[in-house]
Amino acid sequence: MASESNRLRVAILGASGYTGGELLRLLVRHRDVEIVLLTAERRAREPVATVFPHLGPLELPDFVALDEVEWAGVEVDVVFCALPHGATHEVAKGLLHAECREVVDGHIVETMQDLAAAVHGDVKVIDLSPDFRLDDPDVYAEWYKQPHGATDLQGQAVYGLSELTRERIATASLVACPGCYPTSALLPLVPLLGAGLIEQDDIIIDAKSGVTGAGRGAKEANLFAEVSEGVHAYGVGGHRHMPEIEQELSHAAGKAITVNFTPHLIPMNRGILATIYVRFAPGNSVDSLREALMNHYAAEPFVHVVPA
Amino acid sequence: MASESNRLRVAILGASGYTGGELLRLLVRHRDVEIVLLTAERRAREPVATVFPHLGPLELPDFVALDEVEWAGVEVDVVFCALPHGATHEVAKGLLHAECREVVDGHIVETMQDLAAAVHGDVKVIDLSPDFRLDDPDVYAEWYKQPHGATDLQGQAVYGLSELTRERIATASLVACPGCYPTSALLPLVPLLGAGLIEQDDIIIDAKSGVTGAGRGAKEANLFAEVSEGVHAYGVGGHRHMPEIEQELSHAAGKAITVNFTPHLIPMNRGILATIYVRFAPGNSVDSLREALMNHYAAEPFVHVVPA
Amino acid sequence: MASESNRLRVAILGASGYTGGELLRLLVRHRDVEIVLLTAERRAREPVATVFPHLGPLELPDFVALDEVEWAGVEVDVVFCALPHGATHEVAKGLLHAECREVVDGHIVETMQDLAAAVHGDVKVIDLSPDFRLDDPDVYAEWYKQPHGATDLQGQAVYGLSELTRERIATASLVACPGCYPTSALLPLVPLLGAGLIEQDDIIIDAKSGVTGAGRGAKEANLFAEVSEGVHAYGVGGHRHMPEIEQELSHAAGKAITVNFTPHLIPMNRGILATIYVRFAPGNSVDSLREALMNHYAAEPFVHVVPA
Amino acid sequence: MASESNRLRVAILGASGYTGGELLRLLVRHRDVEIVLLTAERRAREPVATVFPHLGPLELPDFVALDEVEWAGVEVDVVFCALPHGATHEVAKGLLHAECREVVDGHIVETMQDLAAAVHGDVKVIDLSPDFRLDDPDVYAEWYKQPHGATDLQGQAVYGLSELTRERIATASLVACPGCYPTSALLPLVPLLGAGLIEQDDIIIDAKSGVTGAGRGAKEANLFAEVSEGVHAYGVGGHRHMPEIEQELSHAAGKAITVNFTPHLIPMNRGILATIYVRFAPGNSVDSLREALMNHYAAEPFVHVVPA
Repeated sequence: MASESNRLRVAILGASGYTGGELLRLLVRHRDVEIVLLTAERRAREPVATVFPHLGPLELPDFVALDEVEWAGVEVDVVFCALPHGATHEVAKGLLHAECREVVDGHIVETMQDLAAAVHGDVKVIDLSPDFRLDDPDVYAEWYKQPHGATDLQGQAVYGLSELTRERIATASLVACPGCYPTSALLPLVPLLGAGLIEQDDIIIDAKSGVTGAGRGAKEANLFAEVSEGVHAYGVGGHRHMPEIEQELSHAAGKAITVNFTPHLIPMNRGILATIYVRFAPGNSVDSLREALMNHYAAEPFVHVVPA
Repeated sequence: MASESNRLRVAILGASGYTGGELLRLLVRHRDVEIVLLTAERRAREPVATVFPHLGPLELPDFVALDEVEWAGVEVDVVFCALPHGATHEVAKGLLHAECREVVDGHIVETMQDLAAAVHGDVKVIDLSPDFRLDDPDVYAEWYKQPHGATDLQGQAVYGLSELTRERIATASLVACPGCYPTSALLPLVPLLGAGLIEQDDIIIDAKSGVTGAGRGAKEANLFAEVSEGVHAYGVGGHRHMPEIEQELSHAAGKAITVNFTPHLIPMNRGILATIYVRFAPGNSVDSLREALMNHYAAEPFVHVVPA
Repeated sequence: MASESNRLRVAILGASGYTGGELLRLLVRHRDVEIVLLTAERRAREPVATVFPHLGPLELPDFVALDEVEWAGVEVDVVFCALPHGATHEVAKGLLHAECREVVDGHIVETMQDLAAAVHGDVKVIDLSPDFRLDDPDVYAEWYKQPHGATDLQGQAVYGLSELTRERIATASLVACPGCYPTSALLPLVPLLGAGLIEQDDIIIDAKSGVTGAGRGAKEANLFAEVSEGVHAYGVGGHRHMPEIEQELSHAAGKAITVNFTPHLIPMNRGILATIYVRFAPGNSVDSLREALMNHYAAEPFVHVVPA
Repeated sequence: MASESNRLRVAILGASGYTGGELLRLLVRHRDVEIVLLTAERRAREPVATVFPHLGPLELPDFVALDEVEWAGVEVDVVFCALPHGATHEVAKGLLHAECREVVDGHIVETMQDLAAAVHGDVKVIDLSPDFRLDDPDVYAEWYKQPHGATDLQGQAVYGLSELTRERIATASLVACPGCYPTSALLPLVPLLGAGLIEQDDIIIDAKSGVTGAGRGAKEANLFAEVSEGVHAYGVGGHRHMPEIEQELSHAAGKAITVNFTPHLIPMNRGILATIYVRFAPGNSVDSLREALMNHYAAEPFVHVVPA
């Protein structure tokens, strides 16, 4: 299903939020990408210009509602899902299952049927939501307070932290992009745990995040006047990114790892600083850890290990 | 209906927003004030601590919903109304009308009857909304897109800009507090127009406001990530504070004044800077205007005219 | 040396910085205080209005340079020192020593002699700098990279954290006000360590501070464009507030305590959030710690322990 | 003097400030550009990583002091000058004059000689400072409080607002990049004045700027705590960008134009909003002006005229 132009044909589902918008901003500058579909529930039928003025002058399709997409007319190679958690399970089934007709029912069924028929099963799905990040559907259900809606697909999902799983991503049909906090914690901790340079117990992750991580939804807590001139911890002992961090650290360590993870919201838009407290394994020091990380990430353009 | 303690018994209706909260913060420090009632629709039955943590340790009544107030038990000397526009008309009728029983009907009637019965008509109402700021109910209806709900009370209302109408405020039963932008424009312009030091035409008011003026409602436009790192004009040529500014300037000039008023939102919480462009009346200069303002406000503690 | 008006006559040395300015703002509202002297090196001979516009309309003395003060004419009951570290030692000797003439020499000597002569030794000195916070002058010298200049006075100094040493402050001649970070760490930790509710090891203090703590000096690192939209840790493993925290915790525990203290700068003006990681002593829990703190601070108006 | 790689060899003088740093960020991503020299006085001999961490991983030359450049070894096609005003005149003479040896003297002479010898006179100079923006050296001297140091070069300078002078820029040896405020005012006003759609009198420009326009110098006024939560006008009636605006508007109108220009600083990093008040020429309206601007800038990728 190659595009005549040899450019990847990309759809973004849920493109009007901060995640979708930033993804769109990056992709429209990529010479090998063609944006063919943008969905947005609340902003359906609006042009991109009214939602993202900075992208307004570009030639992009208007937003459409997800269930109004006429999939029969959509030819697409990659679908990015930037939907709220819980919404991607059905979409992924439609995109990835030939047999989805038997699996789902109701209004969404027909959409999914169309979708499945349209994409012929050779589309790649890159999910920015947490829907496929947790290996164990029961853990998903516990933390997200709803059943996992595509348990049969979970096994196909590759946890998409490029620096750690690049090769598996390359051949995956379904990529679960990591959460923001896990990315900040896993990049330093996975190589250190994997190499046995730090103790496996007593890991404390004190993370400070900008506000866009909370999304573009209109919540009082995220108003300018509530956020500026303040800082607070939240989700103490129970943030949804904790099981995700522990899952990947456990893979790296080869045994179950638990962490103390405390996220904070600070008055800035983007970025996370994770201050991580660990114990050295015998024979290690700040220098040996730094050297290990510098070597591990020497060829990675997006990871900077600051020299001493 | 004096309080035994000789302190003014104060109610604040709509006390959980930014206006009500700041008013509350100021009043609780006043030795002659006792807070007896706080209403808040969305936060009803919550303690002040959950809505305003900084006021949490004080002894204050919990928030109640406005229509659940049992007015029979409330003894109050002053009622501050920090309600959304349109909501104060009925409340004021209940508080100020002996005959309100005949005027209103439905569920609100009984509340207003109780209210009127409770307060005996000698309460003062200080309204922070725009409901009584405009002399002409038709102008109100035009700009606020709804009929004026208490036209018979409008004539009693005193426009409450203390520096300009202090004496009338002292004896008023119903005070309409000025809008934020009008306050910033009227303080300099009223004395200058009144003394004929500036021309009456071509007044341009370019105002820059912090975000709390937009209230505490959860709107996407007021999210931290939307407001920070940006500035925009809004309501160009049609902001609701324009007729209010023109009304008071016309009173000062003794003839109809029109202005060009353009408000802007900038990334800060509080405060307004109004940059005002005027023409000097013959014989005047920056110095003569400054001197006039310094003299006019010499005894006013809250107005600072910066020396040359 | 009582003032005729029975108001405390107060001098603030170093009054043009953020610390001095905020102190001034608080004191001018106090009915029992009279401001008699304000020093500021870089802003000497300027009126308060040019340095702190918000205080401009008040009647306050102009700033003077410290060594131009004619102490013979100054009658003062309390001297607040908001000087850079290292500068308060000499000042305190002048203010508190009858015999300071023999102790010091050079230009400052005469000032100090005048000063000592003027104040008759019964003045109180409240120091906001770190000059008298550390019991051991050698520890001071190590961390502040200069010898302690008033070792004979150090023993008189009371560590001025009101909630913990209120009675000693009341009779002290020399009060060393705590640093900002220590205040945030000691208030929760001292009662918990003192009562044995937490383990004495492995205390981690991850603190997030606003920018004014860095002072009003013109440093590139504190420019708006450097601070906004960012966060960073600094002084990792070596911040000057660490020995101060450890000193007071050791007093509370009755044995030497060491902590892991990591300060961060975040884009806000004021306030500190310290996220503190401790281990429960046997039999304790979040609830028992919270209850202990609530009881300990029940009567303290400036400490709020948030209920569960 | 073509580079073997066919890439433009670029030097940036004054590369450690905000202007130079942003220029560097843009240029390093350009496939046809090679950075060969970066100067910075205060940060001389430092790597880029310590001054701009986000550029740290790139391969870039370390900063050098301007007068320590060994020009004999530098082959360069384009020199960007992001120096403080007043500093570019000498540099431009060295770069552009064969005969500069006679013109200048002292220490800088030799540098300039070397420089001139090195570059063979066919280099292009793109100046980001105001040194060559004003046609009339006397006007420069009046507003910048120093004589113009390269009056003979002024006539060669092209005012480099790409949308208005693109063709002349293409062949210029010396380009004077416009100031930030002038850019915001000229883009809308030049086409409107040129086409006679607005009156030539009574133009008012009320501009709101972010803080980086003030540069990276460590000034108290630009500290986070001074800038955040505030807004102020400055340079009222006398900002240095006013003569630059008036010069270009006069060119567009074919007669001398004066404007009322009032800049404001607001708490954000980048961007300017200029609210401009004009009178319509007879027969014009908001719609006719908007249409004229949309047509004028239809092909310009960096100018967005927002539709009605």
